[in-house]
Amino acid sequence: MDARTLAHFEEKGYLSIEQLITGDELAELRAELKRLSEDSEVKADERTVVEAESEEVRSIFDIHRTNEVLKKIANDPRVVERAEQLLGSRVYIHQSRINYKPGFVGKEFSWHSDFETWHAEDGMPEPRAVSISISLTDNYSFNGPLMIMPGSHRKFVSCVGGTPQENYKQSLVMQGAGTPDPQTLTDFADEYGIDVLEGKAGGAVMFDSNCMHASNGNVTPFARSNVFIVYNSVDNVCGEPFAAPEPRPEFVGSTDFTPAGSRGDRHLQD
Amino acid sequence: MDARTLAHFEEKGYLSIEQLITGDELAELRAELKRLSEDSEVKADERTVVEAESEEVRSIFDIHRTNEVLKKIANDPRVVERAEQLLGSRVYIHQSRINYKPGFVGKEFSWHSDFETWHAEDGMPEPRAVSISISLTDNYSFNGPLMIMPGSHRKFVSCVGGTPQENYKQSLVMQGAGTPDPQTLTDFADEYGIDVLEGKAGGAVMFDSNCMHASNGNVTPFARSNVFIVYNSVDNVCGEPFAAPEPRPEFVGSTDFTPAGSRGDRHLQD
Repeated sequence: MDARTLAHFEEKGYLSIEQLITGDELAELRAELKRLSEDSEVKADERTVVEAESEEVRSIFDIHRTNEVLKKIANDPRVVERAEQLLGSRVYIHQSRINYKPGFVGKEFSWHSDFETWHAEDGMPEPRAVSISISLTDNYSFNGPLMIMPGSHRKFVSCVGGTPQENYKQSLVMQGAGTPDPQTLTDFADEYGIDVLEGKAGGAVMFDSNCMHASNGNVTPFARSNVFIVYNSVDNVCGEPFAAPEPRPEFVGSTDFTPAGSRGDRHLQD
Repeated sequence: MDARTLAHFEEKGYLSIEQLITGDELAELRAELKRLSEDSEVKADERTVVEAESEEVRSIFDIHRTNEVLKKIANDPRVVERAEQLLGSRVYIHQSRINYKPGFVGKEFSWHSDFETWHAEDGMPEPRAVSISISLTDNYSFNGPLMIMPGSHRKFVSCVGGTPQENYKQSLVMQGAGTPDPQTLTDFADEYGIDVLEGKAGGAVMFDSNCMHASNGNVTPFARSNVFIVYNSVDNVCGEPFAAPEPRPEFVGSTDFTPAGSRGDRHLQD
C-alpha cells in the first residue's frame, strides 16, 4: 500500500480497498455464505449467533478454522500482507466471523471500540490489531453499512462497570457492556463526525482495533453481508483478561498465535 | 410550486422543500417538541406512542388539535396551499403527529404505503392525500431518514390477511399488518430503487399517500425528529373502513373534515 493510503489509515483509523476480490472468487464466497446460513448443524453450533427476534443467522464465528473457503481468504497474501504492513510485524488471526445482516430483519450494532473488549475480556495488551471487513454484497447508505468516527482510534475509552460473567453470550447479539455512555458518544460524534462506508461487493475496509464504530439495522430488501477477520501483531499476543473474571472462549478470542499464511495456506504466491 | 416540482412529484411520488422554516420559527418548534417529550402527562396520554424497549417517546398524535404551536404550522398557508395545489382541491387534516426518532434507541419503520392502512382501516376512498414531513433536525443518511421507492405510488398493493382488532395499538409501535410480504418488497426495490431523503433542519418532504416508504433505526447520537401532517382532499373524505371491523380512533384518523386554514388559523396571509 502506498504512503497516501497509509497516511489516511493513520489519520482516520481506516482505509478502503475498492476491489479486493472479483468474479469467481466473489461468487464462491457468496455461495459458501448462503450454504452455511442454510445448514442446520451450523445454525445449532455455539459459534453461530442467531438474531434475537427473527431467529435468522446473524454471525458465524471462527470460520477461518472451520471452513476451507474462508481459511483460504483469511490467509491470502493480499489480506495478510496488508495487515503486516499496517502493524509492522507478522500477524495472527485473533477472531474471524461472517456477519449476515439479512434484509428486512438485520439488526444494528451499537457504538463500540473492539479493542476495549479485546483488552478487558481477551487480554490483548495494546491496540496493535487491525480488522478487515470484506463486503460480499453492495454496501449502500441504507442497508446498515459500517459507520466509523474518523480519528477516534487515537482515544481510548474504558467503559464503566465490570464485565458480567459470560458477557459474550449477550454482547454478540446486542451490544451492552463495552458500549460507552451516551454523553461520551455524543462528544465523540461532535468531535470526530461519522463516516458512512459505502462500496461495492468485493471491496473491503481495514480499520484500527480502537476505532469507534457501529452500524444501523437494515429494513431494506438488500442484505449486507461481510467476512470479518481480525489480525493481531505477533508481538501483542493475548494473555490474562485485564478486566473480566475469565477469558472468552477460543472461538471469539484465539490463543493460537501461529502467524497467518505460514502453514502453506498462503496459496497464491507462496 | 413550479411545473418542474410538480412533474417530479408526479413521477417520483414526492418532492423536497429545501427550507420551509428557519430561525425563530424552527427554534420555537424544536423547543416545543423538547417540552412535549418531557411532559409526563403527555407521555401517559393514549395519543402518545412510546418505544417498546427504551420507553422513550416515539410519536405524539393529533398535535394539530392539542397544541397551539403545531396547530399554527399545520394550518400555515405555506403548507396548506402546497397540499391544495397537489390535490387540486381544498384539504383537511386526516392525521398529524410528531416523530421523535431519538438518538441511540430510535427504532425503524418497516416498508408500507400509508394509503393501504388509511383505505383498509380509516375508510379513505382514493389515494388522494399527501403527507408533509417537516424536519426539525438534520437528516443524514445515518440517522434513520425517510426512504422512498420512487414511482411506487402508482402501484397499489393490498396486504394479505385481515386487519386484527385494535391493530393500530401494535402497528404504531412496530409495523406488522399493512406491511407487504418480502417478495413483493424485493420486486418493488428492484423495479423502483430506493431514494434516501437527506436534508437540513427546517426542510420538508411532501409525498403521495401511496408511496412505499420506510426508515431504518438510529444508533447515532443525532436524533431525527419531524412533524408529520396528512392532508386529504375534501372530495375524498373517509367513511366506513374498507377492510377492518371498526374505524381507528379519532386521533389517528380524523372525522373533522373542516378545510385546513379556514378557521382563522391561516395566520400569516389571511
